[in-house]
Amino acid sequence: MAGKEANTASSKGKKKEVKKETGLGLSFKKDENFGEWYSEVVVHGEMIEYYDISGCYILRPWAMSIWEVMQTFFDAEIKKMKIKNCYFPLFVSSGVLEREKDHIEGFAPEVAWVTKSGESELEMPIAIRPTSETVMSREFLWQEGHTSFATKEEADAEVLDILELYRRIYEEFLAVPVIKGKKSEHEKFAGGLYTTTVEAFVPNTGRGVQGATSHCLGQNFAKMFEINFENEKGEKAMVWQNSWAYTTRTIGVMIMVHGDDKGLVLPPKVASIQVIVIPVPYKDADTKGIFDACAATVKSLNESGIRAEADFSDNYSPGWKYSHWEMKGVPLRIEIGPKDYAKNQVRAVRRDNATKHDIPMADLVERVKDMLDNIQQSLFDVAKQKRDACIQVVHTWEEFVEALSQKKMILAPWCDDEFFCTIGEYLGECKGQLRNYDRTRIVKLYLNLSKVCYKSLQLEGRFLFCTLCFASGKPAKKWTYWGRSY
Amino acid sequence: MAGKEANTASSKGKKKEVKKETGLGLSFKKDENFGEWYSEVVVHGEMIEYYDISGCYILRPWAMSIWEVMQTFFDAEIKKMKIKNCYFPLFVSSGVLEREKDHIEGFAPEVAWVTKSGESELEMPIAIRPTSETVMSREFLWQEGHTSFATKEEADAEVLDILELYRRIYEEFLAVPVIKGKKSEHEKFAGGLYTTTVEAFVPNTGRGVQGATSHCLGQNFAKMFEINFENEKGEKAMVWQNSWAYTTRTIGVMIMVHGDDKGLVLPPKVASIQVIVIPVPYKDADTKGIFDACAATVKSLNESGIRAEADFSDNYSPGWKYSHWEMKGVPLRIEIGPKDYAKNQVRAVRRDNATKHDIPMADLVERVKDMLDNIQQSLFDVAKQKRDACIQVVHTWEEFVEALSQKKMILAPWCDDEFFCTIGEYLGECKGQLRNYDRTRIVKLYLNLSKVCYKSLQLEGRFLFCTLCFASGKPAKKWTYWGRSY
Repeated sequence: MAGKEANTASSKGKKKEVKKETGLGLSFKKDENFGEWYSEVVVHGEMIEYYDISGCYILRPWAMSIWEVMQTFFDAEIKKMKIKNCYFPLFVSSGVLEREKDHIEGFAPEVAWVTKSGESELEMPIAIRPTSETVMSREFLWQEGHTSFATKEEADAEVLDILELYRRIYEEFLAVPVIKGKKSEHEKFAGGLYTTTVEAFVPNTGRGVQGATSHCLGQNFAKMFEINFENEKGEKAMVWQNSWAYTTRTIGVMIMVHGDDKGLVLPPKVASIQVIVIPVPYKDADTKGIFDACAATVKSLNESGIRAEADFSDNYSPGWKYSHWEMKGVPLRIEIGPKDYAKNQVRAVRRDNATKHDIPMADLVERVKDMLDNIQQSLFDVAKQKRDACIQVVHTWEEFVEALSQKKMILAPWCDDEFFCTIGEYLGECKGQLRNYDRTRIVKLYLNLSKVCYKSLQLEGRFLFCTLCFASGKPAKKWTYWGRSY
Repeated sequence: MAGKEANTASSKGKKKEVKKETGLGLSFKKDENFGEWYSEVVVHGEMIEYYDISGCYILRPWAMSIWEVMQTFFDAEIKKMKIKNCYFPLFVSSGVLEREKDHIEGFAPEVAWVTKSGESELEMPIAIRPTSETVMSREFLWQEGHTSFATKEEADAEVLDILELYRRIYEEFLAVPVIKGKKSEHEKFAGGLYTTTVEAFVPNTGRGVQGATSHCLGQNFAKMFEINFENEKGEKAMVWQNSWAYTTRTIGVMIMVHGDDKGLVLPPKVASIQVIVIPVPYKDADTKGIFDACAATVKSLNESGIRAEADFSDNYSPGWKYSHWEMKGVPLRIEIGPKDYAKNQVRAVRRDNATKHDIPMADLVERVKDMLDNIQQSLFDVAKQKRDACIQVVHTWEEFVEALSQKKMILAPWCDDEFFCTIGEYLGECKGQLRNYDRTRIVKLYLNLSKVCYKSLQLEGRFLFCTLCFASGKPAKKWTYWGRSY
């Protein structure tokens, strides 16, 4: 525990301590052992610290600051939409929880029950307020929105407005490409009318990740709980409800998509340090001059709104510092050595592609700004290229099976037969050769005339009305994405 | 529960519903039945909603927005100080909790223990992470800060920097006067070196309220958990730690200090609606013209950064609306009736003192800005006047007893004898006539040469070195505030 406390303490910027035990390399490679690589990079990159309770972890400042960037953006946007924040208690009584029985069935086995206060048994146990995604063994931060409207049209419009904000969080901030879509009946939010989603994809594992969901709940809950309002005619009417959420999973997806064998790679927009400045003194060189130049560089960058810091610690070599800040994924490193100092320039090294650039001091701010913009865009472009390379259009069951085994994200025409809603079991029971997949939850989301879908149709050169379902052979109703998921 | 859900639903601005059941008046008066008045005003003012678990309640948007204003201010300030946010898990294992045994003794009887996950008993119970102020039967939001420093001097300086931010939250935002001071040894944070505090006072009840605390923890925890760093000489050294916190109690204190028999009174700086505009149509008048003037008024105010809204609901009379928004404490009401419309002016009514002001449309923004500033200042001034009127300087035990019975906040010279640290028991055991107070925790904080203290010394016309302790008669060491507290 001492280590944990020490980390907490080191969250104060003023302290000089550098964690020696961090280690400078990763023992696992992203392409070879993705799971172990991920567990290592989140700890060595100082994003989280594991905890002695399963599923719980400490979000360290390096990760928390990313969450805060998204929170600030999203909160300002929903406030423009006149949505207001409130706080609900941590606890919920068993009586109230039971009333939502149908709704909670799925996660009831994992609800955490408080039964004791100090040494006394409680008369009635109380639960830690769960949601459809909360299971006791996984704690995460999330944004949770609930809204209600007089008409379905208003509710429908808001579902998509929020979905667009989620897309922006992934694509504009985290530089992670996502596909907007609608979930199948089988995978929608239980009790809701329909569920929309932004879906990310991790090429290394060939798995889709549900990025964030925006649900129209319809009037089911309004009926159940008599949520009425007085309409313009003075009559009692039932509200239309939406709910929507995203979680710290966003940060996990970002790490999986951009990280490499040197550690984290953070998009500039969410990096709490965008530029790390490192002095590279040499024996006889003017060390003070170099240090002053570093301080001046940080000052200029800060003054123009760039989040820059210098690493002046004298316990570590420049090389150690390079590795340390690469592990933490800082988008741009600036080195100032004797030659740079003499030429009144700095050397900038991009984290995403390791390219090196000499920048005259006179052009510093402008060039760094450009480079950060370029890194942000480039991370997205590269990720999109990799993701797109994994998308495969299939028309037959055989193509589908083959594509799945090649970790593809599959786009296929589908009959939307309810039978296939349980395709997971279907694969296991009816197709012996697919046993590998039978315990894997299969993600499917289908797009109605969305851009991606339309483009795929164009590429295929034929239209939906003359297309058959890849699985049943019946006329297809929708183009649908399929794949393994987390 | 239907009601609760409905309120949640109504947190979306677009909906027209007005809670009819809110009721327009309060059944209790602040001066006559303070406790009942408070419980009623927080519910009728739509700040909180009680919950079916003791000590838990829902923070509705009207209260949450006040918390957010303080959060935004405080977060920006501590970020300037290079303090970073992180997130710790909800749960803590019993093993870890035991390690902090000495520290948790005080609240151990009230720790909430999770013993069941779904239907299964956990192998080891886990606790909901407590703090020295967290008891399971009271849930509140709080800001919690932990920092560490290389030297005591840096830690000392930060304790006071944070305390000053807490003073600003109370005085500049909530318009509540507080006294900065240092807690006695007996009342300091257990295990810490010393505790500083901002203390508020509620004249109606004659009780002090601990507003927020900023502690220097010294090196105790650093020793216990081996929290070390490498100093400039490359040696291992122990950190100096601080911790500090404020809670949603701030909002409660604000309500107690400013509220009146018509409901809440919100300082403009924290009010999510600063100006409510109400159309007052009359039979033959140009209703559309009046409504348009209201909309134009809101638009002008919004454009100049003032948080204004119009209440156009047609289910309620203007009189009903006046009472409704008075109950919610909106600082300024603007009425536009036929006469105002004809004269191209509006009528502004202040919530704090009920004065009415006719404002020509041409001067609208400027005058409203001035009035809001004036209301903010005036709320503080009036509260300070009332608080100061309750401060009484005493020199003898008899004066002390008398002042306490008159609900005063007592300033007295004190010998700082440890014996008096347990003055609560002392009063009960040794002074039969004071039995009324013996179960009351007595707040005492003493000021070393702070401004308030110095002023009091001046007022007294004599200096501490020739002053005797009010209780023991021994030479006094400190001027100390005493009083009953919550």
